[in-house]
Amino acid sequence: MKRKKPWGGRFGAETHGQVEAFTASIHFDLRLAPHDITGSIAHARMLGKCGILSRAEVEAIVTGLGEIREEIARGEFRTDPALEDIHMHIERRLTEKIGQAGGKLHTGRSRNDQVALDLRLYLREAIGQIRDRIRTLQAALVAKAEVHLGTVMPGYTHLQRAQPILLAHHLLAYFEMFQRDRERLADCLARVNVLPLGAGALAGTTLPIDRAYAARLLNFPKIAANSEDAVADRDFAVEFLACGAILAMHISRLAEELVLWATAEFGFIELPDAFATGSSMMPQKKNPDVAELARGKAGRVYGALLALLTVLKGLPLSYNRDLQEDKEPVFEAVDTIQQTLDVLSPMLGAIKFHTERMRSAAADGFLNATDLAEYLVTKGVPFREAHETVGRIVRECLESRQRLEDVPLPRLRHFSRAFEADVLKYIRLEACVERRRSAGGTNSRLVGEAIRRAKRALRLP
Amino acid sequence: MKRKKPWGGRFGAETHGQVEAFTASIHFDLRLAPHDITGSIAHARMLGKCGILSRAEVEAIVTGLGEIREEIARGEFRTDPALEDIHMHIERRLTEKIGQAGGKLHTGRSRNDQVALDLRLYLREAIGQIRDRIRTLQAALVAKAEVHLGTVMPGYTHLQRAQPILLAHHLLAYFEMFQRDRERLADCLARVNVLPLGAGALAGTTLPIDRAYAARLLNFPKIAANSEDAVADRDFAVEFLACGAILAMHISRLAEELVLWATAEFGFIELPDAFATGSSMMPQKKNPDVAELARGKAGRVYGALLALLTVLKGLPLSYNRDLQEDKEPVFEAVDTIQQTLDVLSPMLGAIKFHTERMRSAAADGFLNATDLAEYLVTKGVPFREAHETVGRIVRECLESRQRLEDVPLPRLRHFSRAFEADVLKYIRLEACVERRRSAGGTNSRLVGEAIRRAKRALRLP
Amino acid sequence: MKRKKPWGGRFGAETHGQVEAFTASIHFDLRLAPHDITGSIAHARMLGKCGILSRAEVEAIVTGLGEIREEIARGEFRTDPALEDIHMHIERRLTEKIGQAGGKLHTGRSRNDQVALDLRLYLREAIGQIRDRIRTLQAALVAKAEVHLGTVMPGYTHLQRAQPILLAHHLLAYFEMFQRDRERLADCLARVNVLPLGAGALAGTTLPIDRAYAARLLNFPKIAANSEDAVADRDFAVEFLACGAILAMHISRLAEELVLWATAEFGFIELPDAFATGSSMMPQKKNPDVAELARGKAGRVYGALLALLTVLKGLPLSYNRDLQEDKEPVFEAVDTIQQTLDVLSPMLGAIKFHTERMRSAAADGFLNATDLAEYLVTKGVPFREAHETVGRIVRECLESRQRLEDVPLPRLRHFSRAFEADVLKYIRLEACVERRRSAGGTNSRLVGEAIRRAKRALRLP
Amino acid sequence: MKRKKPWGGRFGAETHGQVEAFTASIHFDLRLAPHDITGSIAHARMLGKCGILSRAEVEAIVTGLGEIREEIARGEFRTDPALEDIHMHIERRLTEKIGQAGGKLHTGRSRNDQVALDLRLYLREAIGQIRDRIRTLQAALVAKAEVHLGTVMPGYTHLQRAQPILLAHHLLAYFEMFQRDRERLADCLARVNVLPLGAGALAGTTLPIDRAYAARLLNFPKIAANSEDAVADRDFAVEFLACGAILAMHISRLAEELVLWATAEFGFIELPDAFATGSSMMPQKKNPDVAELARGKAGRVYGALLALLTVLKGLPLSYNRDLQEDKEPVFEAVDTIQQTLDVLSPMLGAIKFHTERMRSAAADGFLNATDLAEYLVTKGVPFREAHETVGRIVRECLESRQRLEDVPLPRLRHFSRAFEADVLKYIRLEACVERRRSAGGTNSRLVGEAIRRAKRALRLP
Repeated sequence: MKRKKPWGGRFGAETHGQVEAFTASIHFDLRLAPHDITGSIAHARMLGKCGILSRAEVEAIVTGLGEIREEIARGEFRTDPALEDIHMHIERRLTEKIGQAGGKLHTGRSRNDQVALDLRLYLREAIGQIRDRIRTLQAALVAKAEVHLGTVMPGYTHLQRAQPILLAHHLLAYFEMFQRDRERLADCLARVNVLPLGAGALAGTTLPIDRAYAARLLNFPKIAANSEDAVADRDFAVEFLACGAILAMHISRLAEELVLWATAEFGFIELPDAFATGSSMMPQKKNPDVAELARGKAGRVYGALLALLTVLKGLPLSYNRDLQEDKEPVFEAVDTIQQTLDVLSPMLGAIKFHTERMRSAAADGFLNATDLAEYLVTKGVPFREAHETVGRIVRECLESRQRLEDVPLPRLRHFSRAFEADVLKYIRLEACVERRRSAGGTNSRLVGEAIRRAKRALRLP
Repeated sequence: MKRKKPWGGRFGAETHGQVEAFTASIHFDLRLAPHDITGSIAHARMLGKCGILSRAEVEAIVTGLGEIREEIARGEFRTDPALEDIHMHIERRLTEKIGQAGGKLHTGRSRNDQVALDLRLYLREAIGQIRDRIRTLQAALVAKAEVHLGTVMPGYTHLQRAQPILLAHHLLAYFEMFQRDRERLADCLARVNVLPLGAGALAGTTLPIDRAYAARLLNFPKIAANSEDAVADRDFAVEFLACGAILAMHISRLAEELVLWATAEFGFIELPDAFATGSSMMPQKKNPDVAELARGKAGRVYGALLALLTVLKGLPLSYNRDLQEDKEPVFEAVDTIQQTLDVLSPMLGAIKFHTERMRSAAADGFLNATDLAEYLVTKGVPFREAHETVGRIVRECLESRQRLEDVPLPRLRHFSRAFEADVLKYIRLEACVERRRSAGGTNSRLVGEAIRRAKRALRLP
Repeated sequence: MKRKKPWGGRFGAETHGQVEAFTASIHFDLRLAPHDITGSIAHARMLGKCGILSRAEVEAIVTGLGEIREEIARGEFRTDPALEDIHMHIERRLTEKIGQAGGKLHTGRSRNDQVALDLRLYLREAIGQIRDRIRTLQAALVAKAEVHLGTVMPGYTHLQRAQPILLAHHLLAYFEMFQRDRERLADCLARVNVLPLGAGALAGTTLPIDRAYAARLLNFPKIAANSEDAVADRDFAVEFLACGAILAMHISRLAEELVLWATAEFGFIELPDAFATGSSMMPQKKNPDVAELARGKAGRVYGALLALLTVLKGLPLSYNRDLQEDKEPVFEAVDTIQQTLDVLSPMLGAIKFHTERMRSAAADGFLNATDLAEYLVTKGVPFREAHETVGRIVRECLESRQRLEDVPLPRLRHFSRAFEADVLKYIRLEACVERRRSAGGTNSRLVGEAIRRAKRALRLP
Repeated sequence: MKRKKPWGGRFGAETHGQVEAFTASIHFDLRLAPHDITGSIAHARMLGKCGILSRAEVEAIVTGLGEIREEIARGEFRTDPALEDIHMHIERRLTEKIGQAGGKLHTGRSRNDQVALDLRLYLREAIGQIRDRIRTLQAALVAKAEVHLGTVMPGYTHLQRAQPILLAHHLLAYFEMFQRDRERLADCLARVNVLPLGAGALAGTTLPIDRAYAARLLNFPKIAANSEDAVADRDFAVEFLACGAILAMHISRLAEELVLWATAEFGFIELPDAFATGSSMMPQKKNPDVAELARGKAGRVYGALLALLTVLKGLPLSYNRDLQEDKEPVFEAVDTIQQTLDVLSPMLGAIKFHTERMRSAAADGFLNATDLAEYLVTKGVPFREAHETVGRIVRECLESRQRLEDVPLPRLRHFSRAFEADVLKYIRLEACVERRRSAGGTNSRLVGEAIRRAKRALRLP
């Protein structure tokens, strides 16, 4: 026997089986259950406070919902596509449990405001969890930075060696990116944290409800100011997905570097065996699969962002069923991001840096050429001229396979009379690193301070 | 106890649990199992033919794989994230069943060429199924067109009533779109239908295999010509997703029209109760949820396309683990498209068209204004001048709330001396429809022929 | 003769012509010129303050740059692809003007931090302009809402008439969306407003510069904390594009409604002739082209967002030339959004609402069915039962072509004994609107307050 | 004075200036002019053949259009936003030139079918040009492959050295990708090559036109079968953009490898100075900007694809002004792709490969481990066991810093009794390459044949 729909009164025929299968959302919105129950409890208490439900009814509802929450947690809750969505499932079960009072829970609300509430509650929790996980990853970066405050490596532009930097400085660049991600998510949270409940189907309700009270119970600082907007708005989900896409992009950049660094050619890191995988065909292989997958996951999050933007494009007000397509992109992005962060942090902690190899890469490739030019500037040569001069010296060195520090002073003076005896000391690797003491630069004292600032921001000891 | 990896020899430590969870694909690639088995059977037979496996080994493998296929079909196959993917699961189970010979199945291949094969086999089947479902939808469109060869409705541009057309003509516009989708998928199939097996990990294999024989067994007309390309190529999946995105876009256009037509304002169609849903709050509501969801599903398919394009952007050769991110977008697009087509076809068949309402909409709004202008052209007036003249007549009619056919001839002649007594008959609704007998036009004989052509293309009686 | 490159010293051959054409950005980054000059003036003054440039040099530079600004404004500035980008163009021109001091301007900076600065300055200005334009559109919405505080229209869900609402309430839903857009852009601005200058090529500079001073001159509240991040970071641009995509999505929703409302079928609005266009073929046509284009523009902004996300995916640190692909998507999104807002606001102001038609649409279609059910709830009937009862009454009315208010009380009581004589008054259209006085509802007093709140938020009198 | 609109008759007020600016397309569709003229000439000749225009009118029109074509080519054609689009510009100019006959050109067509025709003509030409350019790039790849048939390099999976391959084999993997691109574009062309002209505004025309004749004149093998579809369809443009996105993705993969290979770490290639650029700050830098930009351009093409898909999502039939947003994404993708191919081909030809460095990279890193395992297979060891054995040997070698070929036979036999004296010869680098003679493998004879096949496919001598 088919179950009765909550909207069956007006209908003369049963829903086509294919339609039930197509429109049902229970297979993915079951995960909203805890939030649906939280929202319903607050709604019931609010209805009680406003005298719409009796005290006894409220208690029956709250107790019943609590039990259902347990059933779900224990995996004992059975679902049925004919019941469409999580809201109907819970209400039906509640009515089985407590009888007619269960049918009163939906008083003064619609699934339109209810599902918007559920998604906001879910996303609020998910954002909190993601921010925590970002923090863990940042802490792993900072811990590595502390260890490698003295490690010199090549800084790259265009993936060409550019200037020597500290590995700690490089790692902190990622700290900054992830810090922005946390800020962005916090800003997003302010727009997630708005109560839609009480908007009804689209126009508000005729019952004397108290939305502010419900907001307090659910810890929402704001209530949605317009009922139509409240049920039609999925901006908060798009904004979350945009934050997620930027975060996934950052992860893809870090992952790309780990893949590069783990190559035989760079040889900057060694992945511990526990964080690498092998080949079913090639016995020697040790592959950075985790970093590769982490890089690839950006696709999934970008796709989720675009999917929801597409759904919303050109939708008239207020609620349209297209909006049901909001949840899976959000879930997929949340899961992807959480899983990726969960594996990146311990992996980062376990990576072994080949510091000698990094240092020797920094020593090779004229990374002190800028310093040589800036040396000339300190002697009064205009920068453009100094640049040109050093460029020509580099060209000669390339042909003679020399380093800059190997060019004898007389030969240097052949290029510019401004060179003096102090030049050699000036272009030593450590000198080059240390001299970059403009704010935000790679000088070790500055980087040390940056580490301390980072730890404060993360509330680390 | 942890299970041994197929690549464990070189490794000194076990894989981190988080890494297993992160890199495992068994939760989604289990659905490749039938294709993996099909591919393995062909591979085993080919190895047998080439003398690499003995006849007895081949038979043991083929029998064992057949049994595993049954186990999976019966839902008795147990999975374990530590075994990573479907390939390892099947091989492990095979070895449990038939002993050492199972370990020989992977001879001369790598998971890199194996997984590419599996995805191609899967997609070949999925494309076939999707093309069949499109055909079913086209048949539903044509059936409705046959019934409504005499139904006049307004044709729209800019969603403004433009010229009268036949409903059949309108429905056949969608037939054309879906026909292109089927053609496009057929073209894509030619690029799916290329055998990667034998590419090994990336460079081919040292064993004397016979790829052409494997291709014949698996019914592939072509073998991949370059081993590196064979394992790195996912073009065929992107191309499928692009075809799917265009198809989903077509569906969204059709769905938008169904949503519009079901409004009280248009009132062109009535959805049967079995294909509509109601509101949990508003008792009078009957909503076109299926069409709305079908419209929204475009987001998901667009997202899948973008996801895979993102994954592939900037990937060096040959196989990279990022490529594991190819399967879920493909599965999601396939499922979405199939489910949507499955529900659209019966719904379309069940829709009731309010033909009187359509006709009266076509009679209102000066849809014969173009014909009035073209009438003047037949009398020798240059088109631009005729257009201008009729525009002025329309303006006057708007003010006087008249139809064009209500304007007396003397008044018409006030605008242009070219108007004569035959004008009224010229601008009758049916005359306007019938007169559009340029090829591809809405004239009923032409549309009748188009229906017959469509039926032939669909091999309908 | 080829112009000399600013980096030519090391190079032995001239740049290939095709390479110049391919890598040049001057054809699109010329519009950064005012910002480049602003940034350079601040940089020069800062170098002066730090004693790196003499007072005379600073004055020469500042004067020269001011003159160049004028030349550009007058359209007298000539560009040359061989000079690559706007930075080189300006520096070259400066050197022509003031001689050797011009060559010193680039001291202590790189094009990497310079271009990041330019884009941030540009975007700061653009965000300000966009926020102003949004405000103008909001003001147009609020002005219309004030006029139409008494206009009743159907509220829709699933594009089916759902409950009666005030047109003012509906318009304010858009006010809310655009309000969030402004907030989101303000949040984004905090991340745009960070000074990258002083990061040098990637590692900071060896010169004793004062970044905080430059930040003050340029009115940046923050300086980028890590030099590598400073030159590699384009998050602020992606975030802006994400804000723009959400804004464009809002516009597409509003535009969709305008297109719908302008149809003959809805007939809710009349576009003034000045804001509509006609057909070159059909003399009667009056098309809502502006709304259609505004709806379609979402594609462009979504595309720009995706383009930049794709560029950044998997990019290693620090600066890579791929980043040059950041500007055109940003410019395109800014232009698209500004032009669209510029035309929407006056159009909205000029739209004529057919209020009688709206009202009669609201009176037709059982939009008071929810109220009838809530009436029963006030009489103690559980909501689910009331909903079912009213659903059955609606079904009967559909068959008998009656409105709910036409059903005699005895017949109502046949469905439920809870109906009493007060029911008729309860379900009158205005009563239904007014009764929705839950916060955020469509009750006219609440909407009036919402208008006042909106005006305060817009600082309107 | 404002110019008169071609649709002004019905309108009582002039178009708002902002509306003209917003809706005008002349600033980008001017580039359609040659195609618009080609289409108009064919249309005029067809009208002449059908007796709708006189022979004299046709001749006047054809001559006039020819002159306009010249004016445009000479840059003497003036545009005006008030004239909206290229079609109106040309028609207005024609009427200036030949008088009233010019006004007859638009007989029997609408801008809706006209613009669809123009875009198809444009795209047909662009696809031809792109296919030629791809061929040029393929020829550059094949030329390099011929030179490097003897160059051994490491083949990579997971960017870890995997097995030795020939550089020629690697280059041919890209040949295959681009070959698919050409095939895909050819398939797309079949759907571009369909004549929309004659569909009128949406329903066909009442005039006795001959679409088949126009198709012959314009060299279209097919005419659009349904007039509504003909004006609403932009599939061909989306399909082109999808082909373009896959092509851009291939380019991004090749570019990524060039960037990697140009690093100091890989050192596999040297970019000629003419194809590299320097740094304005760091005198030693030589950057692979062309490859970086080529990689980044994928973003732009992906964005264009997504933009058009978004525009089309949920659009009802038939023509809507949103469709005007089709052209700029197409133009942008065409330009981007053509410019990128134009610079890549000569750059590829000019690249110097450091073959010694490639070879020594291939000799280092156990790239013969698979062969060692396959050696054991030839001795009867099951593959899984052989893999495990070699894995353990590799582990020992890693610790003792040995190559596989350095392990003495007795030690090998300690791991497996199957090792015999012939093993050393078996795992020599060249032997490993040559032994991969399965079809599509890296064996030099096979690669030589592949080169010959490629040259035949490109019709090279």
